[in-house]
Amino acid sequence: KRFEDVYPIVRDQLLKQFKDHSMPQEAIDYYRRSLDYNVPGGKLNRGLSVVDTVEILKGRPLAQKEYTKAAVLGWAVEFLQAYFLVSDDIMDGSITRRGQPCWYRVEDVGLIAINDSLLLEGAIYQMVREHFKGDPCYLDLLEIFHEVSYNTEMGQLIDLLTAPEDKVDLNKFSLERHQKIVIYKTAIYSFYLPVALAMIMCGYPTTAPAGQPDVYKYAMDVLIPLGEYFQIQDDYLDYSGTPEQIGKIGTDIVDNKCSWCINTALALCSAEQRAILDTSYGRKDPAAEARVKEIFGQVGVDKRYEEYEQDAHDRITKLIKAVPEVSNPAGDAVLRHEVFTSFLNKIYKRTK
Amino acid sequence: KRFEDVYPIVRDQLLKQFKDHSMPQEAIDYYRRSLDYNVPGGKLNRGLSVVDTVEILKGRPLAQKEYTKAAVLGWAVEFLQAYFLVSDDIMDGSITRRGQPCWYRVEDVGLIAINDSLLLEGAIYQMVREHFKGDPCYLDLLEIFHEVSYNTEMGQLIDLLTAPEDKVDLNKFSLERHQKIVIYKTAIYSFYLPVALAMIMCGYPTTAPAGQPDVYKYAMDVLIPLGEYFQIQDDYLDYSGTPEQIGKIGTDIVDNKCSWCINTALALCSAEQRAILDTSYGRKDPAAEARVKEIFGQVGVDKRYEEYEQDAHDRITKLIKAVPEVSNPAGDAVLRHEVFTSFLNKIYKRTK
Ligand SMILES: [Mg+2]
Ligand SMILES: [Mg+2]
Ligand SMILES: [Mg+2]
Ligand SMILES: [Mg+2]
Ligand SMILES: [Mg+2]
Ligand SMILES: [Mg+2]
Repeated sequence: KRFEDVYPIVRDQLLKQFKDHSMPQEAIDYYRRSLDYNVPGGKLNRGLSVVDTVEILKGRPLAQKEYTKAAVLGWAVEFLQAYFLVSDDIMDGSITRRGQPCWYRVEDVGLIAINDSLLLEGAIYQMVREHFKGDPCYLDLLEIFHEVSYNTEMGQLIDLLTAPEDKVDLNKFSLERHQKIVIYKTAIYSFYLPVALAMIMCGYPTTAPAGQPDVYKYAMDVLIPLGEYFQIQDDYLDYSGTPEQIGKIGTDIVDNKCSWCINTALALCSAEQRAILDTSYGRKDPAAEARVKEIFGQVGVDKRYEEYEQDAHDRITKLIKAVPEVSNPAGDAVLRHEVFTSFLNKIYKRTK
Repeated sequence: KRFEDVYPIVRDQLLKQFKDHSMPQEAIDYYRRSLDYNVPGGKLNRGLSVVDTVEILKGRPLAQKEYTKAAVLGWAVEFLQAYFLVSDDIMDGSITRRGQPCWYRVEDVGLIAINDSLLLEGAIYQMVREHFKGDPCYLDLLEIFHEVSYNTEMGQLIDLLTAPEDKVDLNKFSLERHQKIVIYKTAIYSFYLPVALAMIMCGYPTTAPAGQPDVYKYAMDVLIPLGEYFQIQDDYLDYSGTPEQIGKIGTDIVDNKCSWCINTALALCSAEQRAILDTSYGRKDPAAEARVKEIFGQVGVDKRYEEYEQDAHDRITKLIKAVPEVSNPAGDAVLRHEVFTSFLNKIYKRTK
């Protein structure tokens, strides 16, 4: 709630800029509609985790001014996510998102949605300038948004080349390729970025001083496996979860997604099973989908997932223990393990 | 030629980053193809004008190291242009660009082109960081790219809302709206940005010291009318130029473009002529296009253009004379009027 209250502040600052540029009222109204439709309707996990991480680092609740600044960075991550989702849905030809039509399918929007996604990205730098210009951390904030956006676009590219919606070729798939896509397309912006933003805001230098541990590297080393684990859960739940559980109908199989499940099955299946997967995966046909699911069952995807989950949990727990709980230069923040365990606990054995 | 030689350096740095991230070879090859297809094939006016402006400001030819840095900024403007054109062509459903198929229409590309345009934009910040990180002007460079990109996206939005390709409504058009679109969508990034980048690189402070003239404001006040004049020429040549002259067939009338010509005709026409324009503009029909051109002739668009051109030339000449020819703080650059007259002379009475 406190986090959500910052959204209208940010949105109204963006709309005020449009007014200050004497944009026509029609454009102001349209932009407002685009922002309200695409930015605030998600689970806000990524945005909230910026604020939560700053609170854990500082070890206390935030005063209103610093809360607003942390929340602006949180919303900037939500804007980044909206930018990726609006354009991804166009590229994938998707129909719905968060239970409503994808933005590009809304009346009078269409391919203007491409430019809307560019504006969502551009808005990040407007928000960050408005709230951080002059701060010692300002340049580091800009650079991490550049870097992480670019990484995510790299991940999107390998995903699009590996699993085009209309051209099934399972030879392109592998668990290794899956891992690469997941790390670049999802883990970096969803897990590393929120924590790194919080650390930057708390004054942790992005280049470690001589003799000091590289805290961003430690964070990355925990958060990338965490993000990978999260996405593998997402892939597994898409296959195994009921619509009541996951709030949607899984479509990864019919959509030719390069999911952990198909890659696991490809690594385990016989030549006969492989032939069926080749002709049945990525087809808009319920019978084909059922054949794929049958093979997932036969090769033991469920058992593999259980093993994977236990191993991921134990591995990440060890990585967290290795993080040095160091202070920032000002001495008013500590890189507590709780930063990472709070993520892990939210995720471990989740079923939705 | 010297400018063109910098492109492969920039491209290879971008590809090396992909390799350093262990991107699959397929993605590296694809990215290279996208860069080579979309970035270097234009007239390079915008990119060259960064280098030319730095040379005029410094009043001497550039040594190799500073030439390369100026050229990297020039190429960054060309990347920005490519980013806009690749996405604009998708939104407009265009067929060809620079005499070849639009990128999204190339085999095996399709809507991946959306992500390719995002990578073209992201590449700007990679190039600028690689060549300017640590320079006193680095932050100003980042901010101006943010600002100008956002302005251009605002201009694109009002263009898309004013002149959707498929829904003709001339009531939305006006010379005032035309001006707004032209300034935001074209003039700022094509004319102001290259000069501002050169000034930033030469150390002109983006916030004027007390008592000093705001040189960026002066530059803006000349370059926005210049960009407007350039685009009005472009609009006029699209209507009046022969294919031999302009190297393409004008399609603004059939494409429902919010061009200077239609807005001038709307301001001058009778009710009868207006009725014909309403039913004939923006139609994929040569007879309708001919009727529009006939009315352009009847209301005297050509004479208006001649008057406009003379007035623009005189007005801009006066604005240039008003610019204070001040030095940068280091005293090794002067804001010579030649920065602006060289643009005006290239443009005045051009017929292609
Ligand atoms: Mg998708
Ligand atoms: Mg996708
Ligand atoms: Mg999923
Ligand atoms: Mg176009
Ligand atoms: Mg357009
Ligand atoms: Mg034109």
